Order: sequence, then structure tokens, then C-alpha cells
Amino acid sequence: MSQRIKIKALLASTETGKDVTVKGWVRTFRNNQFIALNDGSTNSNIQIVVDFENTDAALLKRITTGAAISVVGELVQSLGKGQTVEVKAKEIKILGDSDPEKYPLQPKKHSLEFLREIAHLRFRTNTFGAIFRVRNSLAFAVHQFFQERGFVYLHTPIITASDAEGAGETFHVTNFDIANPPKTDTGEIDYKQDFFGRATNLTVSGQLEGELGAMALSDIYTFGPTFRAENSNTTRHLAEFWMIEPEMAFYDIVDNMDLAEAMLKYVIKYALDNNKEDIEFLTQRLTEEEKQKPQNERSEMSLLEKLQFCLDNDFERLTYTEAIEILRESTPNKKKKFQYQVEGWGTDLQSEHERYLVEKHFKKPVILTNYPKEIKSFYMRQNDDGKTVAAMDILFPGIGEIIGGSQREERLDKLEQRMDEIGIPKDELWWYLDTRRFGACPHAGFGLGFERLVLFVTGMGNIRDVIPFPRFPKNAEF
Amino acid sequence: MSQRIKIKALLASTETGKDVTVKGWVRTFRNNQFIALNDGSTNSNIQIVVDFENTDAALLKRITTGAAISVVGELVQSLGKGQTVEVKAKEIKILGDSDPEKYPLQPKKHSLEFLREIAHLRFRTNTFGAIFRVRNSLAFAVHQFFQERGFVYLHTPIITASDAEGAGETFHVTNFDIANPPKTDTGEIDYKQDFFGRATNLTVSGQLEGELGAMALSDIYTFGPTFRAENSNTTRHLAEFWMIEPEMAFYDIVDNMDLAEAMLKYVIKYALDNNKEDIEFLTQRLTEEEKQKPQNERSEMSLLEKLQFCLDNDFERLTYTEAIEILRESTPNKKKKFQYQVEGWGTDLQSEHERYLVEKHFKKPVILTNYPKEIKSFYMRQNDDGKTVAAMDILFPGIGEIIGGSQREERLDKLEQRMDEIGIPKDELWWYLDTRRFGACPHAGFGLGFERLVLFVTGMGNIRDVIPFPRFPKNAEF
Repeated sequence: MSQRIKIKALLASTETGKDVTVKGWVRTFRNNQFIALNDGSTNSNIQIVVDFENTDAALLKRITTGAAISVVGELVQSLGKGQTVEVKAKEIKILGDSDPEKYPLQPKKHSLEFLREIAHLRFRTNTFGAIFRVRNSLAFAVHQFFQERGFVYLHTPIITASDAEGAGETFHVTNFDIANPPKTDTGEIDYKQDFFGRATNLTVSGQLEGELGAMALSDIYTFGPTFRAENSNTTRHLAEFWMIEPEMAFYDIVDNMDLAEAMLKYVIKYALDNNKEDIEFLTQRLTEEEKQKPQNERSEMSLLEKLQFCLDNDFERLTYTEAIEILRESTPNKKKKFQYQVEGWGTDLQSEHERYLVEKHFKKPVILTNYPKEIKSFYMRQNDDGKTVAAMDILFPGIGEIIGGSQREERLDKLEQRMDEIGIPKDELWWYLDTRRFGACPHAGFGLGFERLVLFVTGMGNIRDVIPFPRFPKNAEF
Repeated sequence: MSQRIKIKALLASTETGKDVTVKGWVRTFRNNQFIALNDGSTNSNIQIVVDFENTDAALLKRITTGAAISVVGELVQSLGKGQTVEVKAKEIKILGDSDPEKYPLQPKKHSLEFLREIAHLRFRTNTFGAIFRVRNSLAFAVHQFFQERGFVYLHTPIITASDAEGAGETFHVTNFDIANPPKTDTGEIDYKQDFFGRATNLTVSGQLEGELGAMALSDIYTFGPTFRAENSNTTRHLAEFWMIEPEMAFYDIVDNMDLAEAMLKYVIKYALDNNKEDIEFLTQRLTEEEKQKPQNERSEMSLLEKLQFCLDNDFERLTYTEAIEILRESTPNKKKKFQYQVEGWGTDLQSEHERYLVEKHFKKPVILTNYPKEIKSFYMRQNDDGKTVAAMDILFPGIGEIIGGSQREERLDKLEQRMDEIGIPKDELWWYLDTRRFGACPHAGFGLGFERLVLFVTGMGNIRDVIPFPRFPKNAEF
């Protein structure tokens, strides 16, 4: 079977006149003559020209949308539009039939909602083929970016006993028969008898463990699944999603911003370079979709332009305090058009505020720094003003927060004091505090929600469409 | 802070006479004069030469093992042995102290067992620095191998409702208050009220979902965590481990073997090329360790030789049936030296048998194929003999099974028949069966246990030492 050529390579081939073997799935079969064949290696199909007069009618009938076939034929210059080469079939074999009456993917436009219900088949559409090839490129680009800079990829634990961050509700992990868990004499669940000898949950972040690695290896990053048991039915939340969390020793908040901006630009450029055709297809898809919206809700830029714009412009950097000033003086705030009015310093920014800054005011990605300590996590480094921490959030058009990070508090006394204030149990995090006891140093890191990045680069509107099998309330199908 | 140079780059530098800034953790401080400084970028330390006569005594006292320091100084040719350059310190800053009375990592040899208890600090040792840099390289090499071949990296779900493979016990995932889960009228747990609206668990394999991707994208691979709630306290098992699972449309069992062998050779070569120093260190470590064993238990080859040997030799390919013949006729079997006597055809091979084939008989990696269907999974393709399936296991010296794979059963009737025989509920796997209903094709895939690969390449003896924070019965620390 080794002589099979993938369609991506075939379409780039100039060796017409040669016999080739190509395999894939039928997208359409026109006039008993033209098969559009796709094998997932590219968004484009290769056209197979069938000599229908000399082909068995029974075989022709089996060339249906979704069928898997193998074709041997001559690669020839194409006379038709939209392709340079095509295959003049000499031999066609049906590998797997696809009953056109029953095949759920008809050769017509299906709604994204419907395709979500048949997520096992949606890879076979142009849109989802493109999305998952782009997702693949972005994932690899993340690795390549960090590898080029000497970072160590660290697998932090998925099952953990700590929810130190208190960031959200966690999923319990247990080996108990839930109908009948063992109890102690006092009637409480006896977690000593559970698999790990204690109550455990799914991780919400690998950061704390990542810091342990950075305090020896200098620069590390994680890339793994994280979990939130939040009952959010939105287009921006998943119960299971992938995060990238680099941690760097000897970095301050500015180094951290520089790295995050460089990383985002690197991975977007990688996708543009390697998935041109997919992104062009997705750009067209989005433009079509937006045509159904009123003019004032359409983007000023196409997807491709938006991505290029991100590469060409420095991200705007300003403090939370400056952002509050801008928002307070903004037209929508004065005209009370925000759902949440921006009054004083200290409140958290809502999505509408972030989007105003990015999409209306600066019209480019924004990095906000130095947030009030009350609205940020205990591990963020306290600034000298006693009010703010060295946090940074990167806000993207259409997405809102895509990265959250900070310089970490390396001073043991400050860290313990903050943990006491918030009520985080220090004994559970003895290992985290140890890194502040022995050889502490300034360090920083951030977290990138991978699906939010994929949303941005593919221009899709619902996060459930950029992960193969989304997990959300009441759904764990496939 | 940007002018800091990592030690790996510094040691390769020839620009003596220049001032450099270097940061890291003190490994040792000899004679108030020579600091061995490490920053995790390499196994080697840079020597910092301190002008102790002109350095504050209070500062000198704080240069202790484990302290984080920043040094500015001149890069000079080293006169000492073991390094070509060193740094003549002009300015030393203590970034973080490390009380020598309390620091758990003393400058002496600690046992691996002890280091496991302080896994948050063990990254700071030569051994674990080397292990996790090698692990990093292997992970990246896996990605690069598949990317070069046009595979799509697919994130299959971690939380799932299916334990289709029935491969092992699974961990339950729930959002319930375990002390008080909601019940139905008939007194059973009411999973409809759980987060996902059904009982869910942690995945044991991404294969089945991976196949769904391959049936559209041709070639995919997963690289993610998988879980087994087996109560195994061995040096070969973890409750949480990482798996790589490629699935390829239009591949048969031979293509599958070719790909697996090429992948193993590629990633081992990548580590040898990129982690020469780490692997040399680990080779020496293993040789030292083996010196404490009786002569006949020592390896014939050093670690480095073993890795090179894998690259230089074709893996031996034979059928299960042939292997049984060899084992039945083997000296240990005849002399009843095996714990499990090899009698007839059909029994599963034990670790001792696999190791005999690999280490004694063939003295190289072995690929066994065509196992009896009774001892393999339902999705493996049935051979025409009616007795065997197109399975393949790759066996490695010292490790045993490192890869398990097969051609998959693409024929709906054969697959359903086997599921019925074994009692696997077909309605739960409707989506898996759909890929056999619509456009099925011959395809194959395999699973590589990533930690077993890291074990092999690092020469370590316990799987708990090659993952940052191991999860096993009664342990979920950090």
C-alpha cells in the first residue's frame, strides 16, 4: 500500500503522465463522471475523471458521497477550473460503501449545531477539516516556539489533591462505588480508603507544579488538559479544555509580556504559513456568515486581515488603572450603554469592557497590567503600592481574555501573608512554599487557553466547534 | 533582565574576555572560591570563580547549596579540568537564600526513594535534570516525527462515558457530593443529575475516538494522559500516564509495523542527537548502579550502546505462533526455569517470556504479530484463519511491551459479531460502528506508553522516576 500518494502532494505534483494511486472519501460524484475525492491531507479535493462508458454500472452506483475508494489512474493536466491536475481513472475499487439514503452528511450545507451532534463525522466536512488542521498547526507551533527557546515540556499531574487556586469548581475523581462509599466511625466519607488515600480532583491548572520545574530547569511549559465543573452553557466555556502554561525563572512582568506576545505572533504566523488554504477557506466562511448580520455587527476586517494585523502591530500595553480611566470617560459608559457601568477603581472588568478597549478604543490586542490584588490570585507578585499585583491579561478582538499571567510572588513572607488573608491552607501547599524557602528567585508565567486561540485563528464563534469532542453540561458523548 | 545568558550557551561560547550575566542555583561552593552554578539548561555547571579576599564575608556565607544567585563577570578560559570556560565574578547577588541546615538536598548522593518524596526539588539533581530534559526531547521528537509525515495531532476526550475497551478499571468522574448523591425513586444513583447527565470516567485510551478522526483526516495521532485504577504497586505501572496513539487510514498491519519501528528509531535518535550529555550522564549512572549487582545480572551493553543498537538493527518480526514454538523449545522452559511454563498455543505471554525472546534469544527488539483473538481486544482485525487477529506488540529489552497495536476490524459484520461474543454493548458505541457503516476502509494504529519509552531511553528502573509527579495507589502528592 506504500505507493499511495496523499492528495496534498498530488495537487502539488507536476509529474503528469505518471500512474498514481490515490485513496480517500468521495465528496461528490457529478454526471457519473467527476469524483471530488478528499483524504483530509488538504482542504482541496482531487478530481477523478471516470470513463463511465467503460465502467460497470454497478460500480458507478456505489460511488456515493462518503464512500471510501481507491483509484489507480494517470495524472493529467486538468482542463477544468479550480485545479491544475486531475486523475484519469484506470481502476476504481470501493473500499467501503456509504448508503446515500442513510449517510448523515449530505452534500449540502449543514448547521454547526447539527454537525456537533455527529461530531464523529464532522471531520469529513470542509469546515471541520480546516479547523482541525489549523488546530494541529497551532499545537505544534506552540511546541516548536518553546523548544527553540530551550524550554522543557513538563507533564504536570491531571489528578491532584489540591485546588489551591480556588479558581473554579473541580470534578471529583474517585475509585469508590459512589452508591456505597466507605465511611469512618463518625459517618464521614473515608477517603483514606480511596485509591489515592485522600480526596482527589481533576486539575484546574498545572501552574503551581510548573513553578516547581522552573525553579530548577529555568524555563518550562505545560500543554495538557484542564477542567472546570462550572455549569456554564456559553460559547466561550468548556468543562474540559487544553491549556499551555509556561513558567520562567528570572523573568519579570515585562519579560513575561514580551514572551507571551512573541508566542502568539509566532503561532499565528505558523498557521498562516502552513495552513494558507484552510485559513482562506475559513475566512470565506466567516465572511459569508457575517453577511447575514446587520452591517454594524460585521467585522471591519476579514479573518485573514485580522490575523495579519496581529502580526504587524505591537500589542497595546497599559495598566488596569489607565484602562479604568479610559472606560470611565468612554462614550458607552457616559451614555450608559454598558450593561455594567464603570464607576470606581477596583472592580473587575467585564467582557464588554475588554472588548470595548480592544475593538473600539485601541483597535488592536491589549495587554493590561497591575490589577487590584483583590480580584487576582494569591500567587501574583505584590507591587510596592500595596494595592496592585504584577498581573497581565492579554485581550484579543472577538475573544476577550486569551492569556492571563503574572510575575509570581517569590517572597515567602508576602506570599504567606496573602495566603492567610485569603484563607488558603499553607500546610497543603508545603511543597509550593518550599520553593520560596530554598533558592527563590523572581519568576513569571502565564496561561493560554488553547481553544480560545483556535477560536481566534479559525474565526469560529463557538468553542464547542474547535475541540474534537466537546465536554459541557449534560454532554459527554463519544 | 534580557541580557542573561543560559549556561548551555555560555559553555559553548568562545567569546572570552566579555562580561556576561548568568543566573542559576548553587550546586556546590568549594574553598570559598569556586561556585558550581546550574540553571537547568544543561547537565553541566559553569564554574564561577570568586575573588574571596575582596568579597564581603557575609555574602560568602550566603553562597550555599541551593541558593539562587545572579553573577556578572568576565568569561575566561578555564585552567581547571572539566570545563573550557569559567566566569571571573565581578558582582554576585543573592536572589534567594537556602539555609544549609534545612535544605533537603544536600551535596551528597540521595536515594531515588528519598528523592521521590521530595519530587518538587528533585529536578535540581543531575539525574532528574537529565531525565526531564530527555523526556522533553522524546515528547517533541514524537510530535516532529508525525508532523513531518502530515499527521494531525488530535485531542481526544479525557472525560468519557465509555470504557469500551474494558482494558482496566477506570476512575469515576463526578460533580456529586459523594457523601450525598441524588437517587432515583428506585434508590439508584441518579446520574441524570450529574454534571454530564450520565456516569463518566477517565479515559483509558483515545484510540476509538482517534479512529473517527483518521476516517476523515487519514493520519492522526493523540498524545495525552490516560488512566488506570489498577491497584498495581510495580515499577512498571502508573495510575496516570501519557500515551501516544496514532491511527492511519489505508494502513495494513505491515505499514503499521513499519511506522512504529521508524517512529521509535526516530525519537531515540533525536534524543541521542540533542541530549548527548544527559544520556552520557545517565549511562554512567546506570553502569555505577549495575556494579552493585552480581555479574550475571548486569547488562551486556551500556545504556548508550543499547540505544545505538536499537537504531542499527531491524526489529525481529515473527508471529505469536512462531514465538510459542521458540519458547516451548527454550532451555528455561525445558528446565522449568520459567515461573509460567509455556505449554500450548493460546495462552498470553508473560513478561519473563517476552524478555527471554528479546534479551536472550534474538538479542534485539521484537515485533510479535497475529495473536490469538481471545487474548486481544474486540476491535482488532480478524485473520482468515479464524483463530488470530492482526495484532502487533513491540517488545523492548528491559521493558517488555512498549507498543501494542493492530490493524483494526473495518468490516461491520465481523466487528459486531465479535462485540456480541465478548458482550460489548453496541448501542453505546453507535458512533464507532458508524465509521464501519459509512466509508469504511482498512486502517491500523498503535499505542505507545510514553513513560515506558522514557524508561528505556534514560535507563531508569522505576517508572515513578520518569514522570514529574507520579500517581499510584495511596499517592497523589504535589
